[in-house]
Amino acid sequence: MTDVATPKRVLSGIQPTGRPHWGNYFGAIRQYIQLQDDHDGFYFIADLHALTSVRDAAQLRQNVIDIALDLLALGLDPKQATLFVQSQVPEVSELCWILLSGTPMGLLQRCVAYKEKVDKGIPADAGLFTYPVLQAADILAYDSQLVPVGADQVQHIEVCRDIAGRFNHQYGETFVMPKANVLDDSAKVPGTDGEKMSKSYDNTLPLFGEVKSIRKQIMRITTDSRPMEEPKEPAGDHLFQLYSLFADPGQRDEMAAMYRRGGFGYGEVKKAIAEASEAYFADARARRVDLEKNLDYVHEVLRAGAERARTVAADVLLRAQQASGLK
Amino acid sequence: MTDVATPKRVLSGIQPTGRPHWGNYFGAIRQYIQLQDDHDGFYFIADLHALTSVRDAAQLRQNVIDIALDLLALGLDPKQATLFVQSQVPEVSELCWILLSGTPMGLLQRCVAYKEKVDKGIPADAGLFTYPVLQAADILAYDSQLVPVGADQVQHIEVCRDIAGRFNHQYGETFVMPKANVLDDSAKVPGTDGEKMSKSYDNTLPLFGEVKSIRKQIMRITTDSRPMEEPKEPAGDHLFQLYSLFADPGQRDEMAAMYRRGGFGYGEVKKAIAEASEAYFADARARRVDLEKNLDYVHEVLRAGAERARTVAADVLLRAQQASGLK
Repeated sequence: MTDVATPKRVLSGIQPTGRPHWGNYFGAIRQYIQLQDDHDGFYFIADLHALTSVRDAAQLRQNVIDIALDLLALGLDPKQATLFVQSQVPEVSELCWILLSGTPMGLLQRCVAYKEKVDKGIPADAGLFTYPVLQAADILAYDSQLVPVGADQVQHIEVCRDIAGRFNHQYGETFVMPKANVLDDSAKVPGTDGEKMSKSYDNTLPLFGEVKSIRKQIMRITTDSRPMEEPKEPAGDHLFQLYSLFADPGQRDEMAAMYRRGGFGYGEVKKAIAEASEAYFADARARRVDLEKNLDYVHEVLRAGAERARTVAADVLLRAQQASGLK
Repeated sequence: MTDVATPKRVLSGIQPTGRPHWGNYFGAIRQYIQLQDDHDGFYFIADLHALTSVRDAAQLRQNVIDIALDLLALGLDPKQATLFVQSQVPEVSELCWILLSGTPMGLLQRCVAYKEKVDKGIPADAGLFTYPVLQAADILAYDSQLVPVGADQVQHIEVCRDIAGRFNHQYGETFVMPKANVLDDSAKVPGTDGEKMSKSYDNTLPLFGEVKSIRKQIMRITTDSRPMEEPKEPAGDHLFQLYSLFADPGQRDEMAAMYRRGGFGYGEVKKAIAEASEAYFADARARRVDLEKNLDYVHEVLRAGAERARTVAADVLLRAQQASGLK
């Protein structure tokens, strides 16, 4: 194993604010878990960020363990990657204050995500406003090189780079400059109303949960009322898009041919979606059931992950403290 | 020693942003050091707060040790009280984020100290804006009951109480509600220009420093040009006010009589101020020289202080983490 370049460190955080849905999976989770294969993957459950929206202690605790189970079931491999809970690395909070000291208000005031959340009715709390600074601390604490993000988070990575650049300029080279790795959102994942699947539209289909109940939700997906006999163009049809997520190319072509022939009912497509999705997630689902019976193992994964993360973060924090005169 | 009520915990922080002057001493330091006698005194050097204004690492390190030397020389007794450096208690940064999550932006936007500082030209950084939240974390982390503050800081104690109250209301009783203990500012401490002594007016006389140089500064204090023969009313005269800080009642009466007789020069009064202040600070000055030769002792005081402070803060942090679901 000589001559192998050190794999780049990739960092991804997931907020424990609810159960992940198909959109989350195809738009983000699947992609960043895949990065573990040829990167040094650091994955954290962002409970400190979730504090601004989950104000119920039992709920937050449950969400954290649920997300850990989800990620492990979906293939996050603790032998390859580091999985941990954000609040178990106190160094991140320490770094957060150091970074806050040098973050111009204007930088945060220009962040659109804050404004959008407040417009949606989320309380305008200081934790929401300074969210990008905690995010910067998360990224910088692990000398992260790549940060996979959705297009809506690219501005926050720019904020992180700005904060890191200012600190390096003021105190000398201290932080590694991270790069955004924009996730591929080309896979269309429509929700049950045909719009983009999103928690805010209340049109999601969950990754895990009772198969029967998910099947019911699939059967209730909105469709148009074109007559069954009429041939249809599959491209752009949301049922076809959903089916395509799970089908192999052969199955997809077959379904496309059926659309073009006509003479089928949407119910058949929905049934196919249900079956294909169940098959697709069957292994993950089985793994999750096993993991639920082995919570000690899950806690041990999180403990060991936090330990590894703290080793890295303690080193970075010390650099920042020495550079700024706190040590 | 039974039947003695547990002494109340009093918390005071001092920013390592420059050398303390006579105004700081009579208006604050002397008063809060005195509280150590019948309180459980926690005194910290606020290096995390200083980050927003001291951007030079070597300067910050020097300021921190200087303030420690100053406080110990002025009578802060590490056998009675706990002296520590803010950043050596990571629990405070952890608590700071938890509190930020639930602090309404409006509460911080209404803080006049932030606006005043920005008006004065201090960069509008997020650290300055969220300063009252870190201050709240400092206060709440030690279950502080009394916080001696100048009148200008009373609003920040109200912010702290508001933040603590919101958390307790949301998650159940977690934090001890602190009370402001407004410092007595009746002792008039004029600066070298006759205005109130203040770093921002550049009219200060330092507590420590070269005796010769301080004497020169005293001799240059602005005076009016009334003829020497004319009797003068001592009340309201800034030289008389300065002399009164150091003189015992007998000496003060004598000086007042001299004013009323007339036929004296301001030079005589300045000389008297120099001599009285030198005598007043002689012991502290000698102790400071000793302490400078025993920096190991000073570091050990700070280390032991931080250890004690962390024990208390860890307990409070755990309460907050459990209440909010982070643990």
